Amino acid sequence: MNTYEAAAAAQRAARVMAGMSSETKNKALRIIADMLKNNSELIISANQSDLERSQSEKLAAPLMKRLKFDQHKLEEVTDGLNSLIGLDDPAGKTLLMHELDDGLDLYRVSCPIGVIGVIFESRPDALVQIAGLCLKSGNALLLKGGSEARKTNRVLADLIIRAGEEAGLPAGWVWLMETREDVNAMLALDQFVDLLIPRGSNEFVRYIMDHSRIPVLGHADGVCHMFIDETADSDMAIKLAVDSKTQYTAVCNALETLLVHSSQSGTLLPLLAENLRQSDVEIFGCEKTCELLGCQPVSDWHTEYLDLKISLRIVDNIEQAIEHINTYGSGHTEAIVTSDSEAAKRFMLLVDAGNVFWNCSTRFSDGFRYGFGAEVGVSTSKLHARGPVGLDGLMTYKYKLIGRGQTVGEYANGSLSFKHKVHDRNCPL
Amino acid sequence: MNTYEAAAAAQRAARVMAGMSSETKNKALRIIADMLKNNSELIISANQSDLERSQSEKLAAPLMKRLKFDQHKLEEVTDGLNSLIGLDDPAGKTLLMHELDDGLDLYRVSCPIGVIGVIFESRPDALVQIAGLCLKSGNALLLKGGSEARKTNRVLADLIIRAGEEAGLPAGWVWLMETREDVNAMLALDQFVDLLIPRGSNEFVRYIMDHSRIPVLGHADGVCHMFIDETADSDMAIKLAVDSKTQYTAVCNALETLLVHSSQSGTLLPLLAENLRQSDVEIFGCEKTCELLGCQPVSDWHTEYLDLKISLRIVDNIEQAIEHINTYGSGHTEAIVTSDSEAAKRFMLLVDAGNVFWNCSTRFSDGFRYGFGAEVGVSTSKLHARGPVGLDGLMTYKYKLIGRGQTVGEYANGSLSFKHKVHDRNCPL
Repeated sequence: MNTYEAAAAAQRAARVMAGMSSETKNKALRIIADMLKNNSELIISANQSDLERSQSEKLAAPLMKRLKFDQHKLEEVTDGLNSLIGLDDPAGKTLLMHELDDGLDLYRVSCPIGVIGVIFESRPDALVQIAGLCLKSGNALLLKGGSEARKTNRVLADLIIRAGEEAGLPAGWVWLMETREDVNAMLALDQFVDLLIPRGSNEFVRYIMDHSRIPVLGHADGVCHMFIDETADSDMAIKLAVDSKTQYTAVCNALETLLVHSSQSGTLLPLLAENLRQSDVEIFGCEKTCELLGCQPVSDWHTEYLDLKISLRIVDNIEQAIEHINTYGSGHTEAIVTSDSEAAKRFMLLVDAGNVFWNCSTRFSDGFRYGFGAEVGVSTSKLHARGPVGLDGLMTYKYKLIGRGQTVGEYANGSLSFKHKVHDRNCPL
Repeated sequence: MNTYEAAAAAQRAARVMAGMSSETKNKALRIIADMLKNNSELIISANQSDLERSQSEKLAAPLMKRLKFDQHKLEEVTDGLNSLIGLDDPAGKTLLMHELDDGLDLYRVSCPIGVIGVIFESRPDALVQIAGLCLKSGNALLLKGGSEARKTNRVLADLIIRAGEEAGLPAGWVWLMETREDVNAMLALDQFVDLLIPRGSNEFVRYIMDHSRIPVLGHADGVCHMFIDETADSDMAIKLAVDSKTQYTAVCNALETLLVHSSQSGTLLPLLAENLRQSDVEIFGCEKTCELLGCQPVSDWHTEYLDLKISLRIVDNIEQAIEHINTYGSGHTEAIVTSDSEAAKRFMLLVDAGNVFWNCSTRFSDGFRYGFGAEVGVSTSKLHARGPVGLDGLMTYKYKLIGRGQTVGEYANGSLSFKHKVHDRNCPL
């Protein structure tokens, strides 16, 4: 099967999945979890082979760690599948009900988007997670994993497909792409594919955005800021800045730029610098910061270090902080540390980002931590879904209008007129 | 001011508008309505000049009708503005609340998208309506109207800008583009413009979609179907088919293809044909229809006639009807006429379209008729907003997380753990 045929089959499957009951979807999730558990040796030995090849190809240590799929990872992914079973079905929810007239009832009802194309990096556990999210939401899926994990991914995909057959899912509901050519072919198939979710480097996400008419959900940059306000508690500010910067540096929700209110430059700033430096963080500063701390100047306030480096600017007031963030931020996650709730309110209202935080670490910006069960990615676009994207972001809706033979002519000539009452009532169909 | 400067100014204005109170927005809507009423002569005389020029350029009669802006139209648009004042503010609504842990509260809160670019055809009343919707939703606006209406649009835009100044709206919140070059320049400004809404011909919408990285909300085609099922009431089926096809042919929600269950071909079909022909509708059929009715064959089932013409196919069963619609439809509005609620349920579940109707005219698919107050357009895309798009479709959301200094490190090392309780509580900020 080539990509065209796979995408066409996925669309056919998606149209069946749109009508699938919650029971069928949950049963399939259970069978997938069992199938993976019962074939743990097969999976782990394929992963062993990927690890050995990657070792000989000198893959970097953090990537080796992400590639590894052992008994512990297997338990994590099957736990993940089981927790999806426990979540409400996101399809078929009535989102709005308008009674247009007696016996003319309008419902806005959630339904799956259709065919989702997901391209992700080495982590093979992501494959299971994404397949589970798409199945639960009723979407068909074209998947491409990292080539380092190709044997593990193949085994996982084959087991998921086999489990799907056993559960009665429509053929073609999930398909694993194996080459870059497959991905490039998919980018052109906007007649079949409804949404792309690329997970990877900035360049990679930009490449996808620039080479397809299919809408893309994701983020290229994660230039996250923290503003330490005049009234910030010193201990809290230090703790949050260090956690946001160092808890895990290679991720999109890690802190990249610290903005400090000028009133704090004599007291808190040196303490902050000391604590960051104790955590091996290299500081790049604005002119004033460089004077005070003896650090190198920032070369570009847009920089996403993804490393133990941070930009630091002293600002005159909250307005300047908000303007800095709206100019240099990427709309990902922006935090304020302050004791003043009015300042927090203002910051959270006027900063234009998917996630705005008060007195907590930027690292909380994540689907698991948000309680969404799992995430397919984080969106910095403003349309459709924003922030960490879980099941909700994989849904669209349709309007269902139920009448008794009413024509628009009758409303146009005045023999009938609209009532437009809003109710809290579920769609009966 | 050129388009670049205008778009940059619109983004600055949008960032102020995101923090504007409902009172300020409603006051501005009231001042705009008063400003238009108090300058009715100015508007009507500009429109007179547009009408005279268009008359001499032999503009088609239906377009002349849409161009006309008289006292009656003025009352309609000011009534529209006043009804917007009465609607709830769509910004600042809490859409979801998760208590992640004690004192770590997550809120999903609605907020404006930012800068919207709207390109519409001749109707100058649309300018006022769109400006009102964007203002109420807190979005800045770059507008381009039809060149036939250029004098009317100029006067209307100037009055709206003057009213905005009086109401204290940020400068640059609305800008009228006057040339095609302005529009082309805007298409490249994805750093400032968040969403494009083109309203016009298929070719025009496709052109916009193909020439910009900015997300486009709208519809190119409106190939709407009606399926007359085995158990359809004959009188109702005829009434609904005639209304859907003839009540207004030039619009996207008019019926283009009729699918008739084969069991109805001996009885209902001839009656249906008779009634359609009495309304001057020319029928194009499938092979069997041509035999039975003596009509011309359909040349392409994708055809959107926008005229007194209809495609007619006899289908064996509801599955064939659904498959036909999912193959040839444009995801706009699809109706079933049936007495069987199970058939209706199946049709509404499996047909992949923004609007699925049971026993009523396809012509109901419209923001006013849906009770949304007004619409900026109809969307056939599946992402973000689908179907008629009112205030809701002009909103996005942000996540607001409120803590007490919690770090992710504390949750990673197990000293704290998530509670993830869902509440029905509004964001306090």
